[in-house]
Amino acid sequence: MRNAFDKNLESLMERLLAMASIAEKMIHFSVQALVQRDASIAEKIPEMEAEVNHYQLEIDNHANRLLCLQQPLAHDLRFIIASMKIGGDLERIGDQAVNITENMEILLQQPELNRMIDIPHMAEIVKEMVRDSLHAFITSDPKEARAVVLRDDVVDALKDQVFRVVLTYMISDPTTIPIGLQLILISRHLERVADHATNIAEDVVYLVEAKDIRHHAEG
Amino acid sequence: MRNAFDKNLESLMERLLAMASIAEKMIHFSVQALVQRDASIAEKIPEMEAEVNHYQLEIDNHANRLLCLQQPLAHDLRFIIASMKIGGDLERIGDQAVNITENMEILLQQPELNRMIDIPHMAEIVKEMVRDSLHAFITSDPKEARAVVLRDDVVDALKDQVFRVVLTYMISDPTTIPIGLQLILISRHLERVADHATNIAEDVVYLVEAKDIRHHAEG
Repeated sequence: MRNAFDKNLESLMERLLAMASIAEKMIHFSVQALVQRDASIAEKIPEMEAEVNHYQLEIDNHANRLLCLQQPLAHDLRFIIASMKIGGDLERIGDQAVNITENMEILLQQPELNRMIDIPHMAEIVKEMVRDSLHAFITSDPKEARAVVLRDDVVDALKDQVFRVVLTYMISDPTTIPIGLQLILISRHLERVADHATNIAEDVVYLVEAKDIRHHAEG
Repeated sequence: MRNAFDKNLESLMERLLAMASIAEKMIHFSVQALVQRDASIAEKIPEMEAEVNHYQLEIDNHANRLLCLQQPLAHDLRFIIASMKIGGDLERIGDQAVNITENMEILLQQPELNRMIDIPHMAEIVKEMVRDSLHAFITSDPKEARAVVLRDDVVDALKDQVFRVVLTYMISDPTTIPIGLQLILISRHLERVADHATNIAEDVVYLVEAKDIRHHAEG
């Protein structure tokens, strides 16, 4: 009996990892398409979004069934709840990749702007945060999870930096307004991905230590 | 035994409603401050955010305890899970009110723009969506919940409309760039509030009908 339950937990974990791998690729492709000015790199995104959405429903279903059929306690219960939350965050990370792709398509209709400002740098950090938060989840490592939470401030600062630089461009040369707006929106989408990675990291700390570090309720 | 459990569910519901009432007021005050160009209307927002955050932790804790101590099934289980999800959405609605307040403060440093474009109209619909999604929750009304989900498209269309109008302003008169950027960001925050109201409405349908309507998985 206990063995079947463990297998069920494992299969929940496997689905989460499969989902995470797609969500990660979505962010990677959407940003690559932008940086390399090649929309074809992102052409699989809509398909991937459908897969991610499907996984979310499946994970929620599976978790619900486990909660119903078994009476999981302590760590198992926290794991099941964390799985549902992480599934929700991964789904929203996928949404942000879709948003970035839409902005990228509008951007590619505009003349090239010399620099992408801090966007590629921001994207690198954000991708790392997603990767590390999931790694912390797989390895049950609250230390790695806490390091992800700390990087959220760096991303926020970069987002403000993008805003300031773009504002200056726009005012000095109004022809950059349409591009500038897309860059600002893209920086906001990346910031939201970082927020979701932070949520995942906070869930990992909760899962391992049964300690809620959200809202700086003590790290 | 059963009675104590019912009381526990009731107290979970009461906390959610108290939290919802604060989150709703936060959106109302932040938008009113903007429309009336009076920052003092929003001065309580930071305090209210702290309260909302506190409620979220409390609701999650309470829900966890109920899942652990009892073995809730079917509707009760769905209610507890929905409570955690709705708590998460309300907390994020509060975050958006904080974001709007920040944009409002920057806006008030700028000369008045004649019109707020569609922002007040958008804000009205968004507030209604929040109110109705919670009403659907209290009254267990999936019909009202579905009506909320449908209005999400109206808000998206208004968001695009704000973008187009602001872009035109900015290009024809670059002095409107700083204001225009804030208006675009505010419209995005309002759109996110609508997304959270939609999430709540979807949770209500799931709670009442045990039917998952997310990702248009059949309404």
